[in-house]
Amino acid sequence: MNIKDKSLKELESFCAEIRNEILRVVSKNGGHLSSTLGATEIIVAMHKVFDSQKDPFIFDVSHQSYAHKLITGRWDEFDTLRQFNGLCGYTKPTESDDDYFVAGHSSTSISLGVGAAKAIALKNEQKERIPVVLIGDGSMTAGMVYEALNELGDRKYPMVIILNDNEMSIAKPIGAISRMLSSAMASPFYQRFKKNTENFVDNFGEGAHYIAKRMEESLKLITPGMLFEEMGINYIGPVDGHNLSQLIDIMQTAKELNKPVIIHAQTIKGKGYEIAEGKVEKWHGVGPFDIGDGHSLKKASQKSATQIYTEALLHLCEHNDKIVGATAAMPTGTGLAELMEKYPTRFWDVAIAEQHAVTSMSALAKEGFKPFCTIYSTFLQRAYDQVIHDTCLMDLPVVFALDRAGIVGEDGETHQGAFDISFLRAIPNMTLFAPRDEKSFHQAMGFAAQYNHPCSLRYPRGSFIHTDLVQSTAFELGKSQLLNAVNSDILFIGYGNGVGRAYETSKLIDKEVSILDLRFVKPLDETMLRNLAKKHKQWFVFSDSAKAGGVGSAILEFLAKDRIFYIKLVSFEYEDEFITHGNTALVEESLELLPQQLAKRVEESL
Amino acid sequence: MNIKDKSLKELESFCAEIRNEILRVVSKNGGHLSSTLGATEIIVAMHKVFDSQKDPFIFDVSHQSYAHKLITGRWDEFDTLRQFNGLCGYTKPTESDDDYFVAGHSSTSISLGVGAAKAIALKNEQKERIPVVLIGDGSMTAGMVYEALNELGDRKYPMVIILNDNEMSIAKPIGAISRMLSSAMASPFYQRFKKNTENFVDNFGEGAHYIAKRMEESLKLITPGMLFEEMGINYIGPVDGHNLSQLIDIMQTAKELNKPVIIHAQTIKGKGYEIAEGKVEKWHGVGPFDIGDGHSLKKASQKSATQIYTEALLHLCEHNDKIVGATAAMPTGTGLAELMEKYPTRFWDVAIAEQHAVTSMSALAKEGFKPFCTIYSTFLQRAYDQVIHDTCLMDLPVVFALDRAGIVGEDGETHQGAFDISFLRAIPNMTLFAPRDEKSFHQAMGFAAQYNHPCSLRYPRGSFIHTDLVQSTAFELGKSQLLNAVNSDILFIGYGNGVGRAYETSKLIDKEVSILDLRFVKPLDETMLRNLAKKHKQWFVFSDSAKAGGVGSAILEFLAKDRIFYIKLVSFEYEDEFITHGNTALVEESLELLPQQLAKRVEESL
Repeated sequence: MNIKDKSLKELESFCAEIRNEILRVVSKNGGHLSSTLGATEIIVAMHKVFDSQKDPFIFDVSHQSYAHKLITGRWDEFDTLRQFNGLCGYTKPTESDDDYFVAGHSSTSISLGVGAAKAIALKNEQKERIPVVLIGDGSMTAGMVYEALNELGDRKYPMVIILNDNEMSIAKPIGAISRMLSSAMASPFYQRFKKNTENFVDNFGEGAHYIAKRMEESLKLITPGMLFEEMGINYIGPVDGHNLSQLIDIMQTAKELNKPVIIHAQTIKGKGYEIAEGKVEKWHGVGPFDIGDGHSLKKASQKSATQIYTEALLHLCEHNDKIVGATAAMPTGTGLAELMEKYPTRFWDVAIAEQHAVTSMSALAKEGFKPFCTIYSTFLQRAYDQVIHDTCLMDLPVVFALDRAGIVGEDGETHQGAFDISFLRAIPNMTLFAPRDEKSFHQAMGFAAQYNHPCSLRYPRGSFIHTDLVQSTAFELGKSQLLNAVNSDILFIGYGNGVGRAYETSKLIDKEVSILDLRFVKPLDETMLRNLAKKHKQWFVFSDSAKAGGVGSAILEFLAKDRIFYIKLVSFEYEDEFITHGNTALVEESLELLPQQLAKRVEESL
Repeated sequence: MNIKDKSLKELESFCAEIRNEILRVVSKNGGHLSSTLGATEIIVAMHKVFDSQKDPFIFDVSHQSYAHKLITGRWDEFDTLRQFNGLCGYTKPTESDDDYFVAGHSSTSISLGVGAAKAIALKNEQKERIPVVLIGDGSMTAGMVYEALNELGDRKYPMVIILNDNEMSIAKPIGAISRMLSSAMASPFYQRFKKNTENFVDNFGEGAHYIAKRMEESLKLITPGMLFEEMGINYIGPVDGHNLSQLIDIMQTAKELNKPVIIHAQTIKGKGYEIAEGKVEKWHGVGPFDIGDGHSLKKASQKSATQIYTEALLHLCEHNDKIVGATAAMPTGTGLAELMEKYPTRFWDVAIAEQHAVTSMSALAKEGFKPFCTIYSTFLQRAYDQVIHDTCLMDLPVVFALDRAGIVGEDGETHQGAFDISFLRAIPNMTLFAPRDEKSFHQAMGFAAQYNHPCSLRYPRGSFIHTDLVQSTAFELGKSQLLNAVNSDILFIGYGNGVGRAYETSKLIDKEVSILDLRFVKPLDETMLRNLAKKHKQWFVFSDSAKAGGVGSAILEFLAKDRIFYIKLVSFEYEDEFITHGNTALVEESLELLPQQLAKRVEESL
């Protein structure tokens, strides 16, 4: 059944079927809900007007692409969404050739569109193909979008960009652009223009009033798009993003314009599921829930690392009014929402803008404040240059709190927190450490709060691996904690959540092992390592991070520098491959990272 | 002599003195010339109206800050500009507390201003202090600027931003924003508005014409600033950036507004040095030159690595019409200018927009093209996330050609190409290699052109270290070249320009050594390394890169994985510190990286 042949009425009921299926599967598997429900008509219209087999369909972040997956032959598999070996929650070309690109970090879509448009022009396919971009208003805050619009507006490649404006982003709309889009009438330029013309026209009687009124109206129409028009991109809108007939007509028009066009479509988040409709953040990404009442089906679990972070930071803030912080559009995900509520003048959501977050927090540090820049490990990649220059070269005491370090589960490849140690460790002046459990997290935060240089701590999604090891002691710069010292050739070195993994593994092998909580991967506890090298020759490193340049690598560099050449070191960090999505335990099992598998790997290495 | 007490006339002649001094020193030492000459009146006015001892003076990129250095007590030292142990070519707080921040990469200034403004608000100092930002039009293309403006326009912190519009950037102005700024009257919105009102007013006779005319004029005035006004930032301009009196008045007004304000100042690049006036790229950064005729005083030297890159790429393009490429505002610096001229539809300057460059080139790769993304090592830091997601996760055959790898000389700390191996090596699907001389560069480019996965090659600023070693052989994936095989315990491993360094060092020690050109740091030539491990126990690594996570680290990881535990490895890569500016040989000497120093270090390690 081809979507092209369907009548408008059939398409409308098709939208309802799509919504039901998304609701059914997401309520069972968890996933991104409200933005995908809101984009259903837009995506159906895209498939009616364009052809994803030839036109590059580019979904920004792509968590709103579920309808596209259902339309392009993945209905039967949709039950496996976000599950291990199942469909990915984002677009993925290896899953279907209707998916043009992997996308999981925001705001890349217009750049991809520009690249595709250049290719189409070079191949002389402009008559047959056109890039179609779907981007949410939240993604419009990241700078990359403007870099791409700047080139697009100049070179004027044909392209259709649909701006899905649900006044949302992940969190509450932040920033001037969001405000401008959602309330055209309140825009400062328009207000000023209106006031000026009113004053001026008052001197000219009725005829002038009429003319001014007409001008004002024509200006009103173009106001929300002025920014785009100014940049050389044609603007159409705003249009009702749930009016399928109108969407199809406008997309058809836009397609034929042979120019870059932005269609500004206003949608309601969660559309079609009453409980979620219009809710800002709650229904963006969800775990399994009861469709009837919307209640979460998640069992109560251990306290998450994020919760511990929030509690520790709240506690520190009580005693230190220099502490400030920022999140890049992840107030709930990072746990900073509570801080923003309690200290509204000291904690900011700066929108999806990691670069700006890092650099602006660095200026606050220069002014004597103590910023906690709270960003997922994977998203800090967006601000690497700023961490190097604006924080570390200036040697400023910014704390980078890296949530979602290690394997993150269902979000998969684009969200794994694998690389932070490798890319941060090379930066001079940077200090890197990690807590292993709740108590050590509080101690690590205490260290961070009083440390006068750049530093970064990482912690996992969900809860730490539970251990009943000896209590954590206070964090001191470059000091590890020896948790278990035995007369054995074997030393387990854990870092962060790897300490629990090391301990669980130690219980499953029939040899005694010493266990070190490394705590600082930079600077290393050289004295401790040197002493342990005298007693233990077989070292095993446990850390939820990439092996290349990771914790094991840091230790090898130290051993080489110290001219200790007899240690047999094995690192159980991640191999050199992107890590897939699915339940974390299943993913870890596939990588042989579960304690029983690690125990076997240890024994094979001896 | 305080600038505050000077009359307008005195200040005007002071500007001339400043220009003469800049010209004198830059013609001798080299440096950034045209933008700094153009900004003289603006900077003098900033010091007249504001106070750099309390107001954060934030210079974007800061290569235009020479006048500021001269005004703030550094006149006597100015002769040492950009020289080893001398004044830095950029702002640097350790040099003077009138310098608020280090800045060497573009477009961070407004973020710094927002951070400073937040701090000022928290400290309740808004009556006494205000951030003052000076940013060039070229810097307006990078996305970070919009991330910062987005928050600024929303929260409305008092701040004065001076946009120094010399229609320049480093290269020719690129993109919609530049066009919009420089030709307000030609802007698409304004044109459309004008046409619409003309048609409409024609029906209403004289009175209507008068009204429409007035409106048009008022609109004209605000048109270039509409983008900023739309974002909630007050706009003043355009103003003559060489009219000191007007600049002082306007800055005073802006200071008192208590809001975010952009002053759009139009300047002439190279102002005051006739030979350089109005030239777009040539006089941006220069070596020593004759003030009288403007001719370069640089002696003819060996062919630079950049020149070899250009020649190799031109050669490849003759036979392969799938090759395309991008530079981020560095057409001359990267040598891509010649390609852009010869193949204008296949090579693009995308403006200062590394993120967009990488992602748009990835889309071209997806479409079957072979992009050469040509970016300085240090600037690729800006696009780290895009390299991971849009190139490597998609496993697309983008070539990253990293110019300025290693120590770059006079530009110093912010421009050293130190970290690329460390941050790229951790990315799955990435291949890393490096040529050592002209012939091997051509061979490396041949490999890159036919390789079907992401890859990156690095090469130094200036020329390769000259060697008379055996000829380079063709590049094969993961294959090294053994240049000298002797019966000795000692193996020198060189990577890229490190091969020449290894060879020069080998000539200065009285022991025979084997020399390996590693060529690929990822993947490593494991077979070769395994064989060499049987013959040589003392390994020395030569590479112009950071030690943490670098070439030595990669080899140590391999040895550990292969369970080879008896190799004594010493890496001569960069220690964990930022590397200062100055003549490259002097900087290398300070780091003990000259061959005679390395020879001594080798002997001490045996």
